[in-house]
Parts: sequence; C-alpha cells; structure tokens
Amino acid sequence: MNYCFGVDVGGTTVKMGLFDLEGNVLDKWEIVTRKEDDGKWILPDIAESINKKIVEKKLTAEDIKGVGIGVPGPVDSRGVVYKAANLGWGVFNVEEELSQHTGVSVKAGNDANVAALGEMWKGGGQGHRDLVAVTLGTGVGGGIIVDGRMLTGATGAGGEIGHIHVEDNETESCGCGNKGCLEQYSSATGIVKLANRRLLADKEESVLRNTEISAKSVFDALKANDKVATEVVEEFGCYLGKGLAAIAAVVNPEIFVIGGGVSNAGPILLDYIKKYYTPYVFHGSRDALFALATLGNDAGIYGAAKLVLE
Amino acid sequence: MNYCFGVDVGGTTVKMGLFDLEGNVLDKWEIVTRKEDDGKWILPDIAESINKKIVEKKLTAEDIKGVGIGVPGPVDSRGVVYKAANLGWGVFNVEEELSQHTGVSVKAGNDANVAALGEMWKGGGQGHRDLVAVTLGTGVGGGIIVDGRMLTGATGAGGEIGHIHVEDNETESCGCGNKGCLEQYSSATGIVKLANRRLLADKEESVLRNTEISAKSVFDALKANDKVATEVVEEFGCYLGKGLAAIAAVVNPEIFVIGGGVSNAGPILLDYIKKYYTPYVFHGSRDALFALATLGNDAGIYGAAKLVLE
Repeated sequence: MNYCFGVDVGGTTVKMGLFDLEGNVLDKWEIVTRKEDDGKWILPDIAESINKKIVEKKLTAEDIKGVGIGVPGPVDSRGVVYKAANLGWGVFNVEEELSQHTGVSVKAGNDANVAALGEMWKGGGQGHRDLVAVTLGTGVGGGIIVDGRMLTGATGAGGEIGHIHVEDNETESCGCGNKGCLEQYSSATGIVKLANRRLLADKEESVLRNTEISAKSVFDALKANDKVATEVVEEFGCYLGKGLAAIAAVVNPEIFVIGGGVSNAGPILLDYIKKYYTPYVFHGSRDALFALATLGNDAGIYGAAKLVLE
Repeated sequence: MNYCFGVDVGGTTVKMGLFDLEGNVLDKWEIVTRKEDDGKWILPDIAESINKKIVEKKLTAEDIKGVGIGVPGPVDSRGVVYKAANLGWGVFNVEEELSQHTGVSVKAGNDANVAALGEMWKGGGQGHRDLVAVTLGTGVGGGIIVDGRMLTGATGAGGEIGHIHVEDNETESCGCGNKGCLEQYSSATGIVKLANRRLLADKEESVLRNTEISAKSVFDALKANDKVATEVVEEFGCYLGKGLAAIAAVVNPEIFVIGGGVSNAGPILLDYIKKYYTPYVFHGSRDALFALATLGNDAGIYGAAKLVLE
C-alpha cells in the first residue's frame, strides 16, 4: 500500500499520475479520451493504462492504496456521476465501475472540486483547510474545501460559482441559460466580451484596437498602461471581487486560490480582485488571503491522488 | 450517559433544555443573561443552573453525555469565541471554561449555525443533510449545514448571508458598514424600509398608509391584495431569491429552511422567494426545497443538544 493513482478525465485527454503516499509524483502520462459509444470505453481504457503501469513499475495490486478520479460532471458522495455531457456519460457509479476494472478501491469527485483539493494539498493553498479555488478559464469554475473536505453539494453542484448572478442588465444569455452570471464577465471569454463592448462604446485610442483580443492581450495592455484595457480590467475585477465577496459571506474561507488561463496574468490579477473584494465583503472575511494556483493542469491528478489518501 | 443539555445564550435570556439522547426535550427553562462585568457571570450562572437541574432530576454527572451551547458570536472549531459584542465577551475558549464549571464535556457553536443544526435534526429540515437555514428577523442570519455538519468558516463567519451584496445603488449603510447588503432589504426592518420608500414614491392608495408598517402589516396587506404591499413583497422577494440563488451556486443545498419573525407570514412567503430564486439559480440547484422553520425560539437548544450527540 505504498502508491496511488490520480486520474483527471478531460474532454480530450485523460491525465494520469502515479504517486507515493507523501504526494510525490513518480510518473505522469496521458491517454486519449475515447468519447465514442457514449464514452463507454473511457473507464476501461483508464483501467488498462493503470494495469500496464503497475506491470511496468514491477508493482502488484497489493502495493496500490487506490485510484482517485476527477470527472467533468456532478459527482455525489457515493461516487455516482450525474451526467458528464462532455464525455457522453449518463448516470452511473464511477467508483464501482472503475474498481471492477482495476481491482483496487476508487474514489471519485467532480474535477473542479478535486483540483481544489490538489491546490490545497500541494499547490497555492498549502497549509489551509478552508479554501475556495477559482478557475478563470473559458468559464468560471470553483472548488470549495471546508475543513479539509470537498464540498460536493446535494446534487454535486457545489462550487458552481460561475453562475452567481452579478448583473441585472445583461441581455445575452450565459451557457447555463440565465443572464448576468459571473462567468459572463470574469472568464477568459468574458473579459474579451467586456473589451469588445468597451471598444465599441467610443473611439478612445487603445492598443487593443490593433490586436486580437484575448485575456492575455488585455492584461498585457493593462501592464503597458493602456487606458481602455485598464477600464476593462477594472470592470472584470469589480464583478469578480463582488462575486468572491458573496462566496465569502457564505463559506468564510481562509484563502482564495486563483487559477485557469486568466491567472497567467500574474499577481496584478490579484490586485484587481482584492480592490473590489475588500469593500464588498463582510468584515469577518476581510482578511482572507489571495494566491495564484501553482499546479496548473496537474491540480486534478494531485487532488485525485489526495482523494485516496483521506 | 442518557441525557444532555442544550443551551442557547441570547442577549437577554439564556434558554436551556434537558434532552434524552433521541432528542426529546424533558425540561425547558430560561435564566437571565447577566451582562455586567463583561459577561463574566454568564457561564458560571449556566453551570449553576445545570447543576441544580441535575440534582432536581436526581441525576448524576455520569448520566450526562455533555452540554451543547450556542453563543451569539463567531466560534471556531475548537470552541474559541471571537468576541460576542452583545454579551461583552472577548476571546476565550467557551468549551473549556464551561466544562470546568460543570465537570462535563462541552461543545460550542455560533447560535445561527446551531439553530440550523436544530432545524435539521427536529425541525423544518428533518431528513436532510445539506441545508441552509435563513433567519429573517431584525437582520438576516444564516446557518449552513454541509453533509450533516455545521459550516463554521475560517474565522467563524460562515453563513453570514445577510451581508451578501445585492444592490449597487444603495446610499444608506448596513450595520456592518457596507452598502447594499441583503439584510438591508429582506429582514423585518428591511421590508419596512422598502415599504416606506415605496409609499413616498407616489400617492398610490394603500392600507399601509393608515397602519404602523411592520413585516406583519405588509404581508397582511399583501394577503388583502393591496397593490402597494404586493409591489413591496415582490421587491423583497426579488432580493431574497437572488441572494439564496447565490448561496445555492456556492453550497448546493437540498433545502432552505426559512425562519425568524418574517416567516410568520407563512407559506406565501415561500412563494415569493421561489418566484425569484428559480430564474436566478444555476440549474443544478433548481430543485432545492423550501420549508418554514418549525422550532421557533427552541431551534437553538435543539441544535445545541445535537452538537453533543454528533
């Protein structure tokens, strides 16, 4: 019982890692996510890859404490996934099925929650037990850790913080069908929308008029003191700061760990979040820390491994 | 080990109950909260009352599994209270001190969280393990239960849901110092403010012009189809529905249990909350239940007793 596997199932690839019980990653690899036939091959493929790795490393099943797996959909505390649309999956028990294929015990969780656990264990949130991980990517994802444990929620929808309502006057719909969700403004795609709206509002000079607009180009322009980019980041930060203040009023975390592609902007991102978090938050949560995520795409495999070791 | 005590410390009285281990209340009484000398007599008074009750009931300390206590301030997971301004208390370990006075083990928690636990155990939230209790009184309080356990938060400020920011255009300050907090609109005092603002806006006829305005008179007028009162309750419900939708995006509860003085309005209150919750909430939480709290002022002693039995 000296090793465990951490598995992070994405829509394109499955990331996998072999860990010792201290959380050192001994090997790391990927396999393709086979989505045909409603994703029925995904778990058998994972099991086959794990079994091959056990042989390759001259281990036996007795050496393996278990397999942790993060999947892109709601997962309840018994390991039942309630549809993972990206994978074609319906409702079934991931833990039981993967355990049958591998012969070792399996713990499953939602990928965003599992990544939060990874950042707590070995990433930007080390040393903390009450943590909110915020992923600013194509959307805004969240993973909430309360007293060291993932908050799953009644139907596996805990930490869906991208869908906090923050704007009454929105006319476009969010992917979820509602209007005015946090992720419409504070994701990588949201900041592009804010920038385009701002550029259309008047003829103010901006380097953004001559570049392809992305989260990166907006933050680069901000760092070059571009006035329009600064206004866009202020607006982005205002929505995000207010949203995180609402989260703090509910769960009162010690730390927010900010990851995802937008977080490549670096520490200046945290400055703009804190600028708007502080005036909107309840005083009991005013001293919450803000840190950048450090594990990048590996947060999922670390967190999945940690699931096994809890 | 067949009994326990549940204690709920308020600013005026301390409510106390003797329970069997199934949660039946065998006796219920109150003592005065002595706030002089920075509240230093409160815990000794409670201990004395408990010890008298043990004698009165012909019990011994060995019959008592423990004492649970809810206090009006932030309490961390080790039982340390961080100031309870109402009582004059500073920072100290309530569990240790009350245990020294009584000779039995003590578990402490914040009063709103403890009341939530009570409603889960014996009140409006029975049968559920992921619950948000919402108290609509002078302010808006909250208690959050995740997987059967109280969410305390990093500094004991978990569930401070009255301070979720819901209105950008507010000019008056909330008691917390911020502007636009949920409790400025959806508390008993908030609904009175909304009613007064609405009445000042024009000369529309309303029975509210001839009565003392309170949460009760507004809901009474609503039930009598008063147009102005209906508008006021719509506004109240909109703020509250949005606020609860934000909470659901974070913790994804099975059920919201609504208590406090405003909840005396009855089931119609839930109708107006759900009307605005549904369009703003993430679909994963759309099926959350809404129920009225049933324990009233006894929720605290029930929850405190439950603390001991966990």
